[in-house]
Amino acid sequence: MIKLDSQFIAQIKSNPHMIQQLFSGHFGLEKENLRVTPSGNLALTPHPPIFGPKEENPYIKTDFSESQVEMITPVCDSVDDVYNAITNLHHIVSLALPKDEYLWPNSNPGLIPDEENIPIAVYRNKEDSSRLYREHLATEYGKKIQLLSGIHYNFSFSDEFLKALFQTSRTENETFQDFKNRIYLKVAKYFMKNRWLLIYLTGAGPAYMEGFTTVSGAENAAENARILKDGISLRNSSAGYKNKDALHVDYDTFDGYIHSIAKHIENGQINSMREFYNPIRLKNSHTDQSLESLAQKGVEYLEIRSIDLNPLEENGIAKETLHFIHLFLLTGLLSENNELCPNNQQISDKNEELVALSGLAHPNITECDHSEVAFSEAGLKEIAKMEAFLTELAPKNDYLANVVALQKARVVDASKTIAARVTQEIKEHGYLTFHLNTAKTSFETADAFAYRFIGAEDMELSTQIVWKSAWKKGVKVDVLDRAENFLRLTLGNKSELVKQATKTSKDNYVSVLAMENKVVTKQILAEHQIRVPHGENHTQFEEAIMSYPTFSGKQIVIKPKSTNYGIGISIFKDFFTKEAFEEAIKIAFSHDSSIMIEEFIPGDEYRFLVMGDDVVAVLKRIPANVVGDGIHTVRELVEQKNDDPLRGTHHLKPLEKIQQGPEETLMLSQQNLSFEDVPPSGKTVYLRENSNISTGGDSINVTDQMDDYYKDLAVKASKAIQAEICGVDIIIPPNPKDYDSAAIIELNFNPATHMHAFPYKGERVLTGDKIIDYLFK
Amino acid sequence: MIKLDSQFIAQIKSNPHMIQQLFSGHFGLEKENLRVTPSGNLALTPHPPIFGPKEENPYIKTDFSESQVEMITPVCDSVDDVYNAITNLHHIVSLALPKDEYLWPNSNPGLIPDEENIPIAVYRNKEDSSRLYREHLATEYGKKIQLLSGIHYNFSFSDEFLKALFQTSRTENETFQDFKNRIYLKVAKYFMKNRWLLIYLTGAGPAYMEGFTTVSGAENAAENARILKDGISLRNSSAGYKNKDALHVDYDTFDGYIHSIAKHIENGQINSMREFYNPIRLKNSHTDQSLESLAQKGVEYLEIRSIDLNPLEENGIAKETLHFIHLFLLTGLLSENNELCPNNQQISDKNEELVALSGLAHPNITECDHSEVAFSEAGLKEIAKMEAFLTELAPKNDYLANVVALQKARVVDASKTIAARVTQEIKEHGYLTFHLNTAKTSFETADAFAYRFIGAEDMELSTQIVWKSAWKKGVKVDVLDRAENFLRLTLGNKSELVKQATKTSKDNYVSVLAMENKVVTKQILAEHQIRVPHGENHTQFEEAIMSYPTFSGKQIVIKPKSTNYGIGISIFKDFFTKEAFEEAIKIAFSHDSSIMIEEFIPGDEYRFLVMGDDVVAVLKRIPANVVGDGIHTVRELVEQKNDDPLRGTHHLKPLEKIQQGPEETLMLSQQNLSFEDVPPSGKTVYLRENSNISTGGDSINVTDQMDDYYKDLAVKASKAIQAEICGVDIIIPPNPKDYDSAAIIELNFNPATHMHAFPYKGERVLTGDKIIDYLFK
Repeated sequence: MIKLDSQFIAQIKSNPHMIQQLFSGHFGLEKENLRVTPSGNLALTPHPPIFGPKEENPYIKTDFSESQVEMITPVCDSVDDVYNAITNLHHIVSLALPKDEYLWPNSNPGLIPDEENIPIAVYRNKEDSSRLYREHLATEYGKKIQLLSGIHYNFSFSDEFLKALFQTSRTENETFQDFKNRIYLKVAKYFMKNRWLLIYLTGAGPAYMEGFTTVSGAENAAENARILKDGISLRNSSAGYKNKDALHVDYDTFDGYIHSIAKHIENGQINSMREFYNPIRLKNSHTDQSLESLAQKGVEYLEIRSIDLNPLEENGIAKETLHFIHLFLLTGLLSENNELCPNNQQISDKNEELVALSGLAHPNITECDHSEVAFSEAGLKEIAKMEAFLTELAPKNDYLANVVALQKARVVDASKTIAARVTQEIKEHGYLTFHLNTAKTSFETADAFAYRFIGAEDMELSTQIVWKSAWKKGVKVDVLDRAENFLRLTLGNKSELVKQATKTSKDNYVSVLAMENKVVTKQILAEHQIRVPHGENHTQFEEAIMSYPTFSGKQIVIKPKSTNYGIGISIFKDFFTKEAFEEAIKIAFSHDSSIMIEEFIPGDEYRFLVMGDDVVAVLKRIPANVVGDGIHTVRELVEQKNDDPLRGTHHLKPLEKIQQGPEETLMLSQQNLSFEDVPPSGKTVYLRENSNISTGGDSINVTDQMDDYYKDLAVKASKAIQAEICGVDIIIPPNPKDYDSAAIIELNFNPATHMHAFPYKGERVLTGDKIIDYLFK
Repeated sequence: MIKLDSQFIAQIKSNPHMIQQLFSGHFGLEKENLRVTPSGNLALTPHPPIFGPKEENPYIKTDFSESQVEMITPVCDSVDDVYNAITNLHHIVSLALPKDEYLWPNSNPGLIPDEENIPIAVYRNKEDSSRLYREHLATEYGKKIQLLSGIHYNFSFSDEFLKALFQTSRTENETFQDFKNRIYLKVAKYFMKNRWLLIYLTGAGPAYMEGFTTVSGAENAAENARILKDGISLRNSSAGYKNKDALHVDYDTFDGYIHSIAKHIENGQINSMREFYNPIRLKNSHTDQSLESLAQKGVEYLEIRSIDLNPLEENGIAKETLHFIHLFLLTGLLSENNELCPNNQQISDKNEELVALSGLAHPNITECDHSEVAFSEAGLKEIAKMEAFLTELAPKNDYLANVVALQKARVVDASKTIAARVTQEIKEHGYLTFHLNTAKTSFETADAFAYRFIGAEDMELSTQIVWKSAWKKGVKVDVLDRAENFLRLTLGNKSELVKQATKTSKDNYVSVLAMENKVVTKQILAEHQIRVPHGENHTQFEEAIMSYPTFSGKQIVIKPKSTNYGIGISIFKDFFTKEAFEEAIKIAFSHDSSIMIEEFIPGDEYRFLVMGDDVVAVLKRIPANVVGDGIHTVRELVEQKNDDPLRGTHHLKPLEKIQQGPEETLMLSQQNLSFEDVPPSGKTVYLRENSNISTGGDSINVTDQMDDYYKDLAVKASKAIQAEICGVDIIIPPNPKDYDSAAIIELNFNPATHMHAFPYKGERVLTGDKIIDYLFK
């Protein structure tokens, strides 16, 4: 018989909004990973300064040890969002670590130094309460045990849901906060009783390095490791990180809960609420975790502390696991009240210990009445509750049904559990080797995702890159308009609106309008003695030929306005007669009703990215091309080049694939080539005339090599138009020291930043970081 | 025989560019007008402070007297431009004078106070050299004579023209500056000899108030005036404002010129170059008019000082006159060198005096050889030169041919001259009455042109208005891109780019983008506790009806997205059922594939124009309407209302005419009316639902009456989005004290400013001035 709270379920079922709200809620994750060297030793380097002061970055801090990164997601409105958030944070941290450092993927450490050499997290202020607390823990519990890392899962119901439930289910004189306290206590009580099941299903730490601790019955494994026989989670066992005494508290009433914890503090068993290492805690976001403020303001969310890092997942936890934990908590809400037996805490503790140390052997589970039930039977009873309320409230949700089915199979068959699979991997590859391989693979995944912010792939790459940098530096991101790539970034009490990564409050409006207007741009640059190619647009033959004196004696190009392939173009690099000038205009007009006469500036095109007073990146842009090897056809060479994982289509990746369309065919034919020709070895074949990255062009980072003269010129041009963030296109002559021959082609007010961040060749420039630093300097 | 420099003419004729350059050049005007009361008395008020310090405003200063406004055009590249410039300045000054002050339109004053009560121009610093110079003049010449006002005409050839001429005509070892000096001296010499003709054709001051001066032979006229018999120009006669001694100088060489003036200074005849009141002066823009710097840097332009104010023209001078003066100077350039007789200065002075005092009688003109020639013969000889070189160099230019023909007719027939016509008017109406009527008509013209900047009618009204305000306040205006209304404003060493009047450097880029985005705007305002109507856009029926809980209990409008005429709209002002909600959505979808559900905010729409911390204007906007009189049809009432000279079409005037198109017909039909119906007296009939000024709506300035609460709200909204120049649209409820019912509909980042400057009802708000003050505060 499945014991669910039929009244609650009926109420919820009667209101489609409540059903929807039941399955939403607010989610947050906190995850710790030790930083390790390629050999699996604890990295003794400081917490990477790129993350800023750990006191201020809300997303990336250190836990107990300086070598123990803690990632904290913002509060998310769905499991999927929080999964993406922790994955993004994991990627961000992985890529920002010093070269050859990795995130250790297990809750149990790899190679660690002697107790005295384990570094406690360093704070700017030596008297920082966080530092003092850690020093207290080091004395009280030892440092080693503090290195056990895990995941905290924070959860609250949607307020609308609780309000609706309150309307129908409040007891007499009960306030809304009283009701919330009661509801969260009910869930906590369920959790306490049945947490053995969650540990069985999420535990992933059955092994540890010899010398880390001593657990009787653990077996030797390769690489000086020990494996708990049939074990699941060292961290959740009595050998894990727990209060010295079992601190039982009263879950029946909120007052009782508060008073029982107060008594533990009074007795000196713990110093403060913060030291109450219960597997689940009732928490309040207003507080600095003091019992007083919890008592006063009441419960706002639950913190589940017993989740192990899962080394089988690159980010430490599977999305299905996150959903399952949510369902587990909902089961607590929807279970019958009287199903929870009183004073079950020692029984639950015993079940937890058994499962943590030998869960894979399916030990019997002790019931409230001290009777024992077969493991699977006990587990399936709880699974059946989930199935039952899902059938009632979410009959069409196949995804959640599968989530439950997956765990159900694990309840039945221990070999399918995470712990069993981790044990298997360790036995096969060795404790260190398995985890280090996993760590390196995880790093490679992070690198492959470097330009993506998971869950924001619908936004522009430059916005995704800025978002990653924002989190890296502890800057909060609100999406104001997704389709428009409109973000608000907040650090401390300073907010900045950012649209499309580089449209910010730093630039003034009219200077953007000036950059948008080629006539105005050229005029202003020329007034500042900056060379710009003189150009004219003509629609009348008679007017066009009148401009001969203007261009006479210069190198010029005459072309139809809309040409892209060199058709109808005449280039005069030397003296030309008026007759030749007129003839060239005639040719251009034969291809378009509008023609351009422009000074020709020989040289290569470079993009300078200016922010404020600095050039933060310089890129050389080369038209789409392949280099022959004397063996492959142009088509084959294009396909090889397009294999680069950074090349994609539709601007979804930092570089674009080279196309094989009419433009490219024509460009080849002008060189007497086709896609089927085999170019000689070393010969560069261009497939486009224009150098845009968006048409398959190559980008080469030349920031460090660039002559300061041109960097100064770029900044000068940007200043001339009073721009702050500006993409300056400069043609640099074949002899770069021939400074006077250089010219500025264009100023761009919303310069692309991703092409600097992920160039075809050369170092990545962290343009996202530069933008964040620039906005919040 | 016409004596022209055939070599010059042949050179110019051979080069089409030189012909074009000959007829261009640089032009500037300086014009003085006395400020007078409606009775013709000198206005003794201070120089209007709206013009800023006279030391700093380059366009509007005072001449000798505080009551003598001096208008100075920028250097213009054509006669037409300089004509427009002086006309605009005249309009700007006219409209900025204190109420009931006018610009006296004659060179000779109206009623003036006793010598001691004539106010000398006041400067911030009592020791200002301009003040000290004026005090010197008052002592040396008396104040009264200083009130004679006139026009200075500054001219220089285009540098390209002079360079081309230099190539072919330089003498051995001659530098370009030597050449320029020589050319300008040649023109000056021609001018000195033939200036009697220019005075005859431009003189307009034959009369003066009794007591102003004494000229023998002057006749009494009505209103205590005196008229010179057959006189032309008191100011250019020996009774005018001249050096005490005739200061003859050497025009043969530049050195001679400099030395001869130096000698006059040495002799104490004048204090400095500044006091050299020659009818033409060779000048240099680098200098503060010192002889030393002229000697050093050479001549850059000519200043012609003998032009009288023409009271027959509302701006003081006809465009044809300006062109004629130009041709007169070109005649000087193109005349044969040897045609200029040596030591002709006393002869020229005598001719000048004769013509100034009795030119209408066509006195004989004395030639170099002291022989006398009949007046018309002498005049026609110079006119024939002009005709001759125009035939050679501009045979197709009918306009210039007409300019010459007009003056030729005046040479033949004195009654056609300006002086004759002015004499006639004075005799007919009286000296004071004629000039005061002229002054008032000129003011009315200025008022009718208040919203226009002559010569910039192709630009937006708001840009024209800003331009006028800029000049009023001494701010230089460069047009960077005409079609885009892109200006650069400069005051002192500070420049500001301004596009479309309100797009400036003061606003930051992303805040403009936030205003452009309704979603972002609403979100930010709501976060600042500012009420915005909640609205949703739907394309799916199923999704639309899901929003019932969001809107239930509110007043709402449901409408097809593209409706304008009320079709398919449902308004719920009270409780509505879900069924009614769904039905309204169904109706809306039957008219459009996209529908809007919006909170309905009852009340009137107001536009608040915010700049920085201030609301500078508030406008109530009322949809196009007419008020019945029980007599006329709607059509007749519309036509009456459209007669308002401020109503035009295509945004060329501040208000738009009410149309009689399908929208208006439909709107009438919804009220069971047609254009042929006669609405009862006092009944307001609306022809549009929307209140836009662009569809004939009325604008009512309510700036002063507006409740401060709403002004504060507008500023708060603008600050919330970090806007600086912002148009805030607020719906104010029927009871304006019901503050909580008000809501902000929209924030506009390029708010129209002309509708505040020229409202349908209420005072004009000088929004152009506000923008200038805001930019340069």
